[in-house]
Amino acid sequence: MNKPTRPTDLSLPTVTTGPISASRKIYSSPQHHPGIRVPLREIALTDPGEPTFRVYDSSGPYTDTTASIDVARGLNRDRTAWVLDRGGVETYAGRQIRPEDNGHVSGAGAARVFPVNHSPMRSANDQPVTQLEFARAGIVTQEMIYVAHRENVGRLAALARAAEALADGESFGAAIPDFITPEFVRDEIARGRAIIPANINHPELEPMIIGRNFLVKINANIGNSAVTSSVEEEVEKMVWAIRWGADTVMDLSTGRNIHTTREWILRNSPVPIGTVPIYQALEKCGGDPVKLTWELYRDTLIEQCEQGVDYFTIHAGVRLAYVPLTANRVTGIVSRGGSIMAKWCLAHHKESFLYERFDEICDIMRAYDVSFSLGDGLRPGSIADANDRAQFAELETLGELTKIAWAKGCQVMIEGPGHVPMHKIKLNMDKQLRECGEAPFYTLGPLTTDIAPGYDHITSGIGAAMIGWFGTSMLCYVTPKEHLGLPNRDDVKTGVITYKIAAHAADLAKGHPAAQLRDDALSRARFDFRWEDQFNLGLDPDTARSFHDETLPKDAHKVAHFCSMCGPKFCSMKITQDVRDYAARLNEQSKGMAEMSGKFKEMGANLYVSAGDGLDVGPAD
Amino acid sequence: MNKPTRPTDLSLPTVTTGPISASRKIYSSPQHHPGIRVPLREIALTDPGEPTFRVYDSSGPYTDTTASIDVARGLNRDRTAWVLDRGGVETYAGRQIRPEDNGHVSGAGAARVFPVNHSPMRSANDQPVTQLEFARAGIVTQEMIYVAHRENVGRLAALARAAEALADGESFGAAIPDFITPEFVRDEIARGRAIIPANINHPELEPMIIGRNFLVKINANIGNSAVTSSVEEEVEKMVWAIRWGADTVMDLSTGRNIHTTREWILRNSPVPIGTVPIYQALEKCGGDPVKLTWELYRDTLIEQCEQGVDYFTIHAGVRLAYVPLTANRVTGIVSRGGSIMAKWCLAHHKESFLYERFDEICDIMRAYDVSFSLGDGLRPGSIADANDRAQFAELETLGELTKIAWAKGCQVMIEGPGHVPMHKIKLNMDKQLRECGEAPFYTLGPLTTDIAPGYDHITSGIGAAMIGWFGTSMLCYVTPKEHLGLPNRDDVKTGVITYKIAAHAADLAKGHPAAQLRDDALSRARFDFRWEDQFNLGLDPDTARSFHDETLPKDAHKVAHFCSMCGPKFCSMKITQDVRDYAARLNEQSKGMAEMSGKFKEMGANLYVSAGDGLDVGPAD
Repeated sequence: MNKPTRPTDLSLPTVTTGPISASRKIYSSPQHHPGIRVPLREIALTDPGEPTFRVYDSSGPYTDTTASIDVARGLNRDRTAWVLDRGGVETYAGRQIRPEDNGHVSGAGAARVFPVNHSPMRSANDQPVTQLEFARAGIVTQEMIYVAHRENVGRLAALARAAEALADGESFGAAIPDFITPEFVRDEIARGRAIIPANINHPELEPMIIGRNFLVKINANIGNSAVTSSVEEEVEKMVWAIRWGADTVMDLSTGRNIHTTREWILRNSPVPIGTVPIYQALEKCGGDPVKLTWELYRDTLIEQCEQGVDYFTIHAGVRLAYVPLTANRVTGIVSRGGSIMAKWCLAHHKESFLYERFDEICDIMRAYDVSFSLGDGLRPGSIADANDRAQFAELETLGELTKIAWAKGCQVMIEGPGHVPMHKIKLNMDKQLRECGEAPFYTLGPLTTDIAPGYDHITSGIGAAMIGWFGTSMLCYVTPKEHLGLPNRDDVKTGVITYKIAAHAADLAKGHPAAQLRDDALSRARFDFRWEDQFNLGLDPDTARSFHDETLPKDAHKVAHFCSMCGPKFCSMKITQDVRDYAARLNEQSKGMAEMSGKFKEMGANLYVSAGDGLDVGPAD
Repeated sequence: MNKPTRPTDLSLPTVTTGPISASRKIYSSPQHHPGIRVPLREIALTDPGEPTFRVYDSSGPYTDTTASIDVARGLNRDRTAWVLDRGGVETYAGRQIRPEDNGHVSGAGAARVFPVNHSPMRSANDQPVTQLEFARAGIVTQEMIYVAHRENVGRLAALARAAEALADGESFGAAIPDFITPEFVRDEIARGRAIIPANINHPELEPMIIGRNFLVKINANIGNSAVTSSVEEEVEKMVWAIRWGADTVMDLSTGRNIHTTREWILRNSPVPIGTVPIYQALEKCGGDPVKLTWELYRDTLIEQCEQGVDYFTIHAGVRLAYVPLTANRVTGIVSRGGSIMAKWCLAHHKESFLYERFDEICDIMRAYDVSFSLGDGLRPGSIADANDRAQFAELETLGELTKIAWAKGCQVMIEGPGHVPMHKIKLNMDKQLRECGEAPFYTLGPLTTDIAPGYDHITSGIGAAMIGWFGTSMLCYVTPKEHLGLPNRDDVKTGVITYKIAAHAADLAKGHPAAQLRDDALSRARFDFRWEDQFNLGLDPDTARSFHDETLPKDAHKVAHFCSMCGPKFCSMKITQDVRDYAARLNEQSKGMAEMSGKFKEMGANLYVSAGDGLDVGPAD
């Protein structure tokens, strides 16, 4: 892999490229759709008896050795053709960039502007443009075909091994099919149970789907603040996050250069980008929530719709009447967006303009197919505040807003907590499904205890795995820096890997038909002492290899049938061949006895009892 | 804190001493028992309105600034007096150390022998000596009084706040009292539902209890192997592990110097030490399982009983008949002890001598009050093998052996898996409780997926939190090095902190009456921007502080009412005061209206409706 070096003039972002260990990028097309090229990562294994292993690949062209990456040009804009083919859109001049979009930055403080300018598109004459509108009309879009094929990775292999009945999960009402058809995708989107976040102005996107009957996805948050980091760091964080498996990325930048940072990220991102538009709106009025206006917010929405943001977190459920419900909380309102709106509501003693103008917001977002991520501005910020009236009052309102957005043709997902102890997690999932008509749930953690700052990727990874199992469609990562500072590149990786673990553990427990293939392939490699294969099948081959090499660094140890745990003299795994030989002998003996027994039976005698019976200790319950 | 420096002559272990950040060691005595001094850690807070916060403290005298630590002398042997007071024991010469005890090491390879020799004690004339025997006889031992007081940390404070109804967990049948009395401890031990692992020859011990109705405990594994590490590294690993919260430590050393390493660890350990005696027995016969004999094993048991090991993992459930059940597994037998016994059984085509001699093993262990940790030698080593017939057949046998050990007066806990996907975890707990008469469960993880070597503290921390919630009494940690190498000091800390998170998350979810106090205290600190208090109330103040300081290193930032996430201009937490003021005004207004309303009522009119009603969105369900 090629690590980025810090640029000398701070002007052009450099990003990590090159394949992941032992992997190569391949593209696979669904039958009859040669124009749809779905990326996969193929892991080469050292055992000729083991086929190469294919995994879902969110990393984009950056891991493709044949791709030429030019961050100043951006990724290919292939999806524009699909949008134009469907018709119903118009290309127009678009809003002019204004000084306040970048916090009035100038001179040396200004980041380099992205060199290419693209005119935006929008729905023309109210014609259908969202995936939901097409789905309801019975139209299977290219994006739907794409994600269906993408979700099927491993399923053919799983079907071939169906006799082994790999998947035996508890799905809590999810209905994950053995095979994903484009029609199934269309139907799930039409029902509002899944979304494809895909702004028509983000044609660099490799479409992906978020829904309970698909693979559990993860989101990585990046973004600079007034205190730290720069454009180039953020672009690299995005590339780095998707390299390790982030399915979507949220740019939570605040401070200056906010428009420019987002432009660089979007033009180079193959995954959906989410934002919280109120953050930028707040920058535009000098950081004072009281000065926020609908007009300012509306202008920001259009700015970001035209740029190509794929989903917006909108805290329209923070109603004036709910704000006092947080007064006696241990940690009050901890959502930044939620507290901005609470402040505005209190200062003006008015209902939230996000709630009151929700229809208009829907109209704007529909025209670009920007998906809603209805924000949980009143989520609990501590164990003490979990599942309280403020939180659930807002959730009920999000349910009401979901129905409005759906009626307007918008795709919707719902954000969830936060800090929740284990015994209160399932209630969140059940209530969300009920209140919000099965719209996808997108949760932050939840953190299952407050007592481990520095380790909140773990306190939350526990809750994320559980709520993913219960039905959450996308898990928003938490990094080790949560509550303490902004994540750096290492923190981003740790957060992503932790959440890939949670998502995969959830897929396994839900009974995803292909999930266990990777566990099994890795476990076979482990058992066979194929060290390189064990590393390469893991979520982070580099770290696994470096840990192994701390004690046994030589190349010879990579093929050694021992490890530093037991040393070379004795290894539990070596015993297995003995066991297998013994079992085979017993089996032969048993067969032999059965044959003899059969013969004796024929002769009217029954002298033998099968030796196998003695081994049968009754079925495991 | 004083970090150990690498000794120049490799002869005398140096260990980490000094208090944990902002903490001091205090000792608390139960009423009427001034001789019992239970250690606690008291965390000083910066807010004069917040009392100092006391937490359970496993770290021993190493964090006591008034204690003089001399690893070559060992810790004080105070508990000897309790054992002698109870009577029924004899001091005797004990077994002579033999060359094979240390793998025939000699010359430069030999570690420095622990300089002090103590004669061992044992039960005389079959008189009662175990905590179980005393408990059944209705005798409350000093150890029981000690652990009752120790478990009550936080409970008085919780009782004082009972009106807030902190604990609202789901305990799955556990019955955690509001207050722990010595009589409750006695009763739980008499029923076999809890154990106090406390060899009479380990008088350096600060007693602790393992049981479903007490705080969830964690174990840290240490130990050298033929490939790596030395005596002094292992002693420091023990001290380091208990510093961060390990409640017991298992010494899994193999290779040479095994007796000497254990002696150094035991004489300096305030926590129970567990071992797997078959490991040393195997060393004594040159690493060849086939050469193991009952006599060799018996001799090893006595050697370790006399040294003071508190619990033994004994894989007596690996019966000959079960071995073939593992033949078709993806990862066969992964337990080292299990595979040793499987190999022996197959080679001799005989039933396991651990199973056949179980009565005699009980008699030996009873005489010293060494507790059983009945090993799960057939635990699954992969998701594919979870909950299979081999695993559950062995568990059923462990249930049978539990009853035998109990009849012999021995304390017992049961070891559990391993690798188990989330949806199969609860079945393990339920079956263990049923088969083993509620004897404490002691689980390794379980790991909820196989695909993340390098991150198995996290794959397993998820499973550990869940099974702890369901009823596991002690969680055996897994470090990031699992499957890859032996843990170093950093890995030990990461493993311990991860498992403290899992144990605490479980306590919270079970409804432990005092667990949430710490979450609340930390969350209040977080919300008040008392950065130092937030760090110090956390499980790892050092890491939290260093993460914070990466972006905001100045001392002034430790009292700043902002952090690097949002920067100084806007902070969600600042909004809260506005919210509280507003709610207070509303409340006043509401009261005022209620008063007016009351007056009007008196006048026969009812013109006002309480403003509060508009805020009530119905109870959260």
